[in-house]
Amino acid sequence: MSIAIMTSGGDAAGMNPAVKRFVDYSLQKGLKPYLIYDGLVGLLDGKIVEADKHAVSGILFRGGTVLRSSRSQRFREPEYRQKAYEELEKRGITKLIVVGGDGSFNAARVMCHEADIAVAGIPATIDNDIPCTDYCLGVDTALNVIREAIDGIRDTAASFRRTFVIETMGRDCGYLAAMSALTSGAEVCLIPEVPYDMNGITARLNAEITAGRLYSIAVVAEGVLEGRKLAEVLERETGMEARLTILGHIQRGGSPTVIDRRLAFEFAHTAVDALLDGEKSFVTVTKSLEVGIKNIDEVLSTKHVLDPYICKMVSTLCH
Amino acid sequence: MSIAIMTSGGDAAGMNPAVKRFVDYSLQKGLKPYLIYDGLVGLLDGKIVEADKHAVSGILFRGGTVLRSSRSQRFREPEYRQKAYEELEKRGITKLIVVGGDGSFNAARVMCHEADIAVAGIPATIDNDIPCTDYCLGVDTALNVIREAIDGIRDTAASFRRTFVIETMGRDCGYLAAMSALTSGAEVCLIPEVPYDMNGITARLNAEITAGRLYSIAVVAEGVLEGRKLAEVLERETGMEARLTILGHIQRGGSPTVIDRRLAFEFAHTAVDALLDGEKSFVTVTKSLEVGIKNIDEVLSTKHVLDPYICKMVSTLCH
Amino acid sequence: MSIAIMTSGGDAAGMNPAVKRFVDYSLQKGLKPYLIYDGLVGLLDGKIVEADKHAVSGILFRGGTVLRSSRSQRFREPEYRQKAYEELEKRGITKLIVVGGDGSFNAARVMCHEADIAVAGIPATIDNDIPCTDYCLGVDTALNVIREAIDGIRDTAASFRRTFVIETMGRDCGYLAAMSALTSGAEVCLIPEVPYDMNGITARLNAEITAGRLYSIAVVAEGVLEGRKLAEVLERETGMEARLTILGHIQRGGSPTVIDRRLAFEFAHTAVDALLDGEKSFVTVTKSLEVGIKNIDEVLSTKHVLDPYICKMVSTLCH
Amino acid sequence: MSIAIMTSGGDAAGMNPAVKRFVDYSLQKGLKPYLIYDGLVGLLDGKIVEADKHAVSGILFRGGTVLRSSRSQRFREPEYRQKAYEELEKRGITKLIVVGGDGSFNAARVMCHEADIAVAGIPATIDNDIPCTDYCLGVDTALNVIREAIDGIRDTAASFRRTFVIETMGRDCGYLAAMSALTSGAEVCLIPEVPYDMNGITARLNAEITAGRLYSIAVVAEGVLEGRKLAEVLERETGMEARLTILGHIQRGGSPTVIDRRLAFEFAHTAVDALLDGEKSFVTVTKSLEVGIKNIDEVLSTKHVLDPYICKMVSTLCH
Repeated sequence: MSIAIMTSGGDAAGMNPAVKRFVDYSLQKGLKPYLIYDGLVGLLDGKIVEADKHAVSGILFRGGTVLRSSRSQRFREPEYRQKAYEELEKRGITKLIVVGGDGSFNAARVMCHEADIAVAGIPATIDNDIPCTDYCLGVDTALNVIREAIDGIRDTAASFRRTFVIETMGRDCGYLAAMSALTSGAEVCLIPEVPYDMNGITARLNAEITAGRLYSIAVVAEGVLEGRKLAEVLERETGMEARLTILGHIQRGGSPTVIDRRLAFEFAHTAVDALLDGEKSFVTVTKSLEVGIKNIDEVLSTKHVLDPYICKMVSTLCH
Repeated sequence: MSIAIMTSGGDAAGMNPAVKRFVDYSLQKGLKPYLIYDGLVGLLDGKIVEADKHAVSGILFRGGTVLRSSRSQRFREPEYRQKAYEELEKRGITKLIVVGGDGSFNAARVMCHEADIAVAGIPATIDNDIPCTDYCLGVDTALNVIREAIDGIRDTAASFRRTFVIETMGRDCGYLAAMSALTSGAEVCLIPEVPYDMNGITARLNAEITAGRLYSIAVVAEGVLEGRKLAEVLERETGMEARLTILGHIQRGGSPTVIDRRLAFEFAHTAVDALLDGEKSFVTVTKSLEVGIKNIDEVLSTKHVLDPYICKMVSTLCH
Repeated sequence: MSIAIMTSGGDAAGMNPAVKRFVDYSLQKGLKPYLIYDGLVGLLDGKIVEADKHAVSGILFRGGTVLRSSRSQRFREPEYRQKAYEELEKRGITKLIVVGGDGSFNAARVMCHEADIAVAGIPATIDNDIPCTDYCLGVDTALNVIREAIDGIRDTAASFRRTFVIETMGRDCGYLAAMSALTSGAEVCLIPEVPYDMNGITARLNAEITAGRLYSIAVVAEGVLEGRKLAEVLERETGMEARLTILGHIQRGGSPTVIDRRLAFEFAHTAVDALLDGEKSFVTVTKSLEVGIKNIDEVLSTKHVLDPYICKMVSTLCH
Repeated sequence: MSIAIMTSGGDAAGMNPAVKRFVDYSLQKGLKPYLIYDGLVGLLDGKIVEADKHAVSGILFRGGTVLRSSRSQRFREPEYRQKAYEELEKRGITKLIVVGGDGSFNAARVMCHEADIAVAGIPATIDNDIPCTDYCLGVDTALNVIREAIDGIRDTAASFRRTFVIETMGRDCGYLAAMSALTSGAEVCLIPEVPYDMNGITARLNAEITAGRLYSIAVVAEGVLEGRKLAEVLERETGMEARLTILGHIQRGGSPTVIDRRLAFEFAHTAVDALLDGEKSFVTVTKSLEVGIKNIDEVLSTKHVLDPYICKMVSTLCH
């Protein structure tokens, strides 16, 4: 049975580990895996190649996507989509995994409806704005890149009295900015989801400056306000020099973190399994880390056991 | 009301963010927060100081624990513990948070039983071997440090035909070794929880070497077999030179990752809240990321909303 | 004999190792070392404290300057400077090391002329624009931070057809931008020292795009042109979407690299030695790595010996 | 005119940038560049391919060597070397650059004598033990990898009373261990070049422990003493638990630092130029950063100018 994978929309760390796991696991299951290059554009143009282990060797560690991505206007027109279906049919591909965001999932749904292709979406976007899942591939890597940038700024911050403004990605979703501000101890954070009060902010900062604050850090999602403008306002209203950092595409880069690799593996695994089980149009999702409490006696009387799933995976590596 | 925190047992990244959040949140709740230095030893010796915001400024970013830690024989003797209870009572401290592993939670339980101190445990150990919780503070940071080490070795691996053996921490628990091997694509992994077959391993490697394998990576938890010995066996049985890396305390270091900071915050938050609610002896716990699937129509028809808890937290930063 | 150190002007990685080495080496030479906090402002205000080993423990690894820095208008007025001289005289300080850039060295020179204080300048500025020395403290660290940022962008670059514009520090000096562009393989680089031809650049890029170029990277020093404007021009003239990264104060941060630590040590060492030898107003300087060739027979017939200075330093660590 | 490059001996960061620059610069000079894969073994076996720009695209950033390396017994026998000369002659290659250490330069010299091939050696080895040059490719990258490892250990060091032993590479040369110990502030350092006194060391440590020392760091070059043994001795003689880290091949990995990229460029450039000038057997070398002093008036009256060589290089990027 033939099965294909493509990456689509903005690139995100974790796409490559998902592609690698897709190939390895498909081969293990006796399937014929295909790689579609250049996203929807490549699908229309038939850039589809059968994959073996060598095709994905050494990609686990790399950011971005070796399959590349694209945005396609042509895909909106039925006659072009027909071309895509022919390319898939020609190779006997009836199952397709799309790694990307909502836009890509929409395209997948259309293919399922029009051509009866079973489709699985794997959420991957550093914006973390896909409904029904608490994490998308690329988010943990992006957050850690931002963390290192802000930590680096703190090194230098106390030398002078200054405000540091950091503009993150996030046109419509403030997740990256919010989590970065909270876990880096920023003093100011503007995101699209929460209305802000600039007078309140500057009054608060001025009170703290009077009380001895030496520097402050403000994180702003690009969709709310240009970082440049926030820097101007803060400098004018607090009298403290403000300096701007626009992180830009640094946030997309970096070798995938352990969480992003692990999620990539489990998403790919789950997608292949569900397609084999006959599921026809779905998205792999995950729940966040939920924190609660447990009686201490219960904890101390429970024996710790390593997750049997991990043991099973490892047993292939120690035999 | 007075409330104290201490770190105990092996240090782990995430302890400092937990201490910081404890102080900030306690002050916000109108509590009087105390810091106990040097773990159980410091508790016996009365190294207990009231904390203000300044006491924990700048620690969010640092690995290890600024409160330091210790192992105490004296704590096993009732007369010394009596001394500890007096030190707490003297300051009106009736609630205590212990950040550490099982040994530390055991000590906490004793204090609760003997002196009616309400105790909360926050799991922190890079071994990830505490029952009832899927993650402990420090695990994500340790895993990412190991990941960078193994990725660095791969850079150089293909230049020569060689086997690279990496010995990780883990006397009784193979979590670190297992997750590192799986997410780094290692060929061999030995952990205490899974019996291994050395003949099987070397036969498999020899077959792959014959088929063209250029190098291989083996990860071993220190509790299974000395890395040195594994290197000797693999070199002898495969004829490929083997080189050893013992990661040692590198694994404990590093600025806490975003996940470790976030868990630290939520654990501290939850511990303080539950103590205020009258809970008397508990551990904060978290469930792992669980992966599942969701119908694509449902995903696409759902509106994405940012977690209201995050919005609430951010609203203090934009007013 | 009393000797003091201060950091002044923009902060740079390497300042802390220089301060640490100053204290250690002064104590070893039997001198009484003083630390001046807050730069020239602190000197005027008498923020001068005698230092022991503990005062500088743990600072070797940190970016920025624990002595903090400042810019002082008051120092331009003789009556304020008089105050500074009194603060120094009161403590018997007749020798002063200033770690900073030209502005700071000017101030040092004035002190030498007016009050017969022996002054040594240690060049520290990430701009690398101090005459007579090929390297300043902080430059190597800044270059490596920029390198990691650009390498991270490359991870993601090939996924889409795009131009990435990176704005570095450098108002009047293009060293950072130039070295970063050259060692990162950028396609475009604008610096203040070399007139540019925008038509030439866009014509060249367009030719390469036609020939198959997928993405390009442009590095611009902030003093030449706002990165935002360069991005606009390149996007308009090549038709390729352009994305902006302004590195900002990320460039100042980071733990000092080995070169910056080593230079810091040697500069501090040399400054103290020369002051003890009676030198009165000087700057420590270094020559760049000069590359040449040597006959292979000579190389192979020469015995390699480890630098005797390194051996001497190590001998204190193995006895 | 045809010119070839190979990497030989242990791999080192900086080899890839040297290969890239070799190809780019050769093409610019109108030469026909060849890449020899697998070192001397590949030379004997004719693994020699003509290179264009694409062959070396994307390698600037990678550690190790994409040309791979080897050790060859066969090369010691004249009849095999004859085979090598034929492979070169067949392609008209009369000039050869060997990137590696002494062993590789010896082989190069033989080729020059026996077959009149003009040879250039580019020093590359993390041991930094090649005579007549102060730096070899890979040294700065290795030092910074070790620095990060030791800095990471310090994070965690103060939590417990412990000794941390770090074993670095260096069988016959202590450069890596020595520079790492000095720039990381280690308390103990053992290298092959300096006789050590273990009794003296432990007496010194014991005195410091009595005076309050909490932890200590010992760096040992693998050629002096196994780290494991040093840890045993220190633990026994000081009563402080000792923990071992063997850095192993981590030290060879990592993306080349700016210094290693820059040296790689200048070495490659210089090698090609000298070969074109008719030099027949030489090694490219560099002098270390030499520190001295300069009168402050002279510094302040000199106008800073950017190195004309840098300006010339940049001018190709801004036109």
